[in-house]
Amino acid sequence: MPKPPVPPSVDALLRHPNAAVMASTRPDGSPHTVATWYDWEDGRVLLNMDASRVRVNYLQARPAVALTVLDEQSWYKHVSLIGRIVEIHDDVDLADIDRLALRYTGSAYPERAHRRVSMWMAVDVWHGWDATGAIATHADWKP
Amino acid sequence: MPKPPVPPSVDALLRHPNAAVMASTRPDGSPHTVATWYDWEDGRVLLNMDASRVRVNYLQARPAVALTVLDEQSWYKHVSLIGRIVEIHDDVDLADIDRLALRYTGSAYPERAHRRVSMWMAVDVWHGWDATGAIATHADWKP
Repeated sequence: MPKPPVPPSVDALLRHPNAAVMASTRPDGSPHTVATWYDWEDGRVLLNMDASRVRVNYLQARPAVALTVLDEQSWYKHVSLIGRIVEIHDDVDLADIDRLALRYTGSAYPERAHRRVSMWMAVDVWHGWDATGAIATHADWKP
Repeated sequence: MPKPPVPPSVDALLRHPNAAVMASTRPDGSPHTVATWYDWEDGRVLLNMDASRVRVNYLQARPAVALTVLDEQSWYKHVSLIGRIVEIHDDVDLADIDRLALRYTGSAYPERAHRRVSMWMAVDVWHGWDATGAIATHADWKP
């Protein structure tokens, strides 16, 4: 799988507020997946979650993480990033979840009572596909 | 996380040909994710992939698998299944990929030259969320 930096076509897909699914690792080594908001900045991924979520513990214990981003127009165009959580911090004043909410909904995040956690993901390798071949890492990729 | 059988609202979501992302485990223990077609039958998930894909090897070595399914109308409604691959077989005559292609595109699968592999996933636990609370496993779930 290719390493970063990603080409401009992939960068453009990641910049758009697309649907995404993140994977972390459970204590028994099995994967856990969930839909998520994200942001993309300088080749890193911002993730943010309620502090009570099990994946906070999973990622504190094992920083390996994967993220698949699906293009809003057609999910057959998709990019997957594989990497590591390199930074974890409390989302003080909910600045990061507001950033994500503004990106996805145009408004600040409505729920202010819960503590939230931010994580930054660094990308080690990536893979992707689309029908035009613009971002395909497998020339013969099939679902 | 709740165990199967899933409630009717989750079953209905899984029956629809929605976008999905599957996770498997790489040899170093880190997760690998990719967009995928799937089918849902009798509480199990059918997956199918080109025999050359790395995740075939990953899942043969470690059967743990997770799948997040995103509702076509709004991806904020989503269900994630965590389980194991319980059956792997060659997709003889491409019957299974044709089944998936018919489900998603209405036509048989156009690429007939490549060998493909089918896998059946059994579900151990699941989690999900939607804005109405119909399938939420966290009453206070936030992205």
